[in-house]
Amino acid sequence: MPPAAAEPLTPERILETTEDVLRRFGPTKATVVDVARALGVSHGSVYRHFPSKAALREAVTDRWLAKSVVALEEITSASSGSAPSKLESWLEALFEAKRHKAGDDPELFATYIVLLDENSDVVDRHLTELIDQLARIIAEGVDAGTLAAADVPAAARAVFDATGRFHDPQYAADWLSPTIFAEFEAVTSLIIRGLRA
Amino acid sequence: MPPAAAEPLTPERILETTEDVLRRFGPTKATVVDVARALGVSHGSVYRHFPSKAALREAVTDRWLAKSVVALEEITSASSGSAPSKLESWLEALFEAKRHKAGDDPELFATYIVLLDENSDVVDRHLTELIDQLARIIAEGVDAGTLAAADVPAAARAVFDATGRFHDPQYAADWLSPTIFAEFEAVTSLIIRGLRA
Repeated sequence: MPPAAAEPLTPERILETTEDVLRRFGPTKATVVDVARALGVSHGSVYRHFPSKAALREAVTDRWLAKSVVALEEITSASSGSAPSKLESWLEALFEAKRHKAGDDPELFATYIVLLDENSDVVDRHLTELIDQLARIIAEGVDAGTLAAADVPAAARAVFDATGRFHDPQYAADWLSPTIFAEFEAVTSLIIRGLRA
Repeated sequence: MPPAAAEPLTPERILETTEDVLRRFGPTKATVVDVARALGVSHGSVYRHFPSKAALREAVTDRWLAKSVVALEEITSASSGSAPSKLESWLEALFEAKRHKAGDDPELFATYIVLLDENSDVVDRHLTELIDQLARIIAEGVDAGTLAAADVPAAARAVFDATGRFHDPQYAADWLSPTIFAEFEAVTSLIIRGLRA
């Protein structure tokens, strides 16, 4: 991407370029100066949007995690579909999003594994958001009488924990296994059966 | 432990000493010569029982993993108790064994994490053994009409996968969390509910 200083320098442009720079130089070597150079601006201009290298790395991590949340939010807030089938679709969509992140661009994925480690607050917020979506689906099922849960937030957390093998990046290598879909299916149906009213 | 070359040099004595040596020197530095020296024997005597350093490391890993299997096998083959309550006891015993390994001797645990990584065949055999025990409990429940599973080995695998957060050493840091027991309880009861006939 050639420098294009004439375009307005938005946070989104900075974050896109930061991702490019991280992919090219790796998470240990990439600097704010590299990002500024790729954008054709001074590093001061980047700092006006992100006050430190840490803030920039945090924001790019947040953006990466947020990408999969949009599709999951659509499933969560859909007005049609029963809660058990929403739950199944939601878990499938989460697994698919994670597999694509890991498989489509393995170098960028490896970079983000490093960033996730150093930005545990961002990760915690992301996980809380996902578990909140699960809680909304389960609460809807409890109201409709299709699901049963004495403690909805605890049940949401349990569903998330029980499916960790299919979304925790620590297991990314397992996602290439030829039996992974059958294993996902077995865990998902066990859990949904466990929640049925 | 002082050298005691007069005692017979059994594989078990060599493995015990290997564990001591690994704990003291760490997994990267410990050598067969260190083990022989601690035993007061020549390294040739050690090689008569374990033909290579790799074989010795594999055997010590196997021994470490096998320790928790004995208690789990007792639960599996007990003649009293319903399958759902056996399943619960088995999962509790597995979690307890793993927590103790991680918490009681963190240095040795860190050493074994390295050994597990280099002995994936040993780990696979161990996991297969555990999943086979789960399958026996589930099959017993299906026979007695207390549990339902169309495919018993797949259900056993699903139970194991769904409880990974409470036995996979990757999650050892989480086991110190004050909420971990409530989370374990929530996942376990969800799964057992999902298997009930």
